[in-house]
Amino acid sequence: MHKRGLFITLEGGEGAGKTTQINLIEKYLMSKGISCVFTREPGGINISEQIREVILNRKNISMDGRTEALLYAASRRQHLVEKVIPALKEGKAVICDRFIDASLVYQGYARGIGIEKVMEINEFAIEGYMPNLTIYLDIDPKIGLERISASKNREVNRLDLENMKFHNKVREGYLTLLKREPMRIKMINANQSIDNVFNEIKILLDKLFEID
Amino acid sequence: MHKRGLFITLEGGEGAGKTTQINLIEKYLMSKGISCVFTREPGGINISEQIREVILNRKNISMDGRTEALLYAASRRQHLVEKVIPALKEGKAVICDRFIDASLVYQGYARGIGIEKVMEINEFAIEGYMPNLTIYLDIDPKIGLERISASKNREVNRLDLENMKFHNKVREGYLTLLKREPMRIKMINANQSIDNVFNEIKILLDKLFEID
Repeated sequence: MHKRGLFITLEGGEGAGKTTQINLIEKYLMSKGISCVFTREPGGINISEQIREVILNRKNISMDGRTEALLYAASRRQHLVEKVIPALKEGKAVICDRFIDASLVYQGYARGIGIEKVMEINEFAIEGYMPNLTIYLDIDPKIGLERISASKNREVNRLDLENMKFHNKVREGYLTLLKREPMRIKMINANQSIDNVFNEIKILLDKLFEID
Repeated sequence: MHKRGLFITLEGGEGAGKTTQINLIEKYLMSKGISCVFTREPGGINISEQIREVILNRKNISMDGRTEALLYAASRRQHLVEKVIPALKEGKAVICDRFIDASLVYQGYARGIGIEKVMEINEFAIEGYMPNLTIYLDIDPKIGLERISASKNREVNRLDLENMKFHNKVREGYLTLLKREPMRIKMINANQSIDNVFNEIKILLDKLFEID
């Protein structure tokens, strides 16, 4: 019998550097001989992909916010059941790029449905599989946006600035969650060099995996 | 300003005669000059149809029961928002062939997820739009099954009998809901002639619509 693996999620707004850090986490954990699975929803799970197609179909402009929240929860459920839980049961660590908190923040807080209400349907979906650790990469949306623009080699435009209000709300949402669950969610200032951000992540990983 | 219309749902297992009775209800209410809309989920709502396709796709054999329940709730939400609520707001009566109780009974009770749990995600979906009246047509699954077989001109087979256990559980589920919400849900013995069943429905409609 394997010991159940640890479940880690990464959260953060646009341009916070999640992908870069996930790659570093992967290298680090592998170098320590920790068997792990890296994933993000819908994660190649066929049913979850089909649900995502409905959510993202540009023709579905009449989609209600609660319909969307239920569909995200459904997609999450299937990805969890088919991919995350089996890996955890094999004793593997699972590192997931965004999970429940993204729904709480985007649909619950920023879109105004309410964190508690979106939590209820997500609790139904995840059935107790809350992450052991959630790393939140915090960045001022303005800086995040400038990073993305720079990487795409284009200037910040009017639409970007209009979206800024929304991204500020997203950040507020994450900070709200952080206050509620300080044991599970750990904030890291992402407005630092890649190495400095990763050094802070490493401290969290070393503690969680009991790495000397 | 119109007065908000009344919302009526019909529930019942296989062969209980819902379709026949809905046709009679339609004729009756129209003869009394009551403006009404008859519908059933997904009711021609494009987004709800897309969600149903995912649920009913025979290739999706790995679909988890909770994923399915969330998808039904999502489909219900969109049908409610796009079709039911606008009609109620115009002051029309809405008669819907199956609604929330079907999920509570099929997924919650018969499939074993739990009535309370399925209720939670459906409360999120319907946001207070509970039916004013739910007519439950009660029939012994054995009799319902014999009716269907007769109408299809075929004998009851082994598979039918295996399904019987499930249909008995469905009936148990409806009777459980009835005990919880006797004010909203009214049971009618569907093992009577079509006319007798409809006469009992008429008494409920006359009271609800204050028809003399």
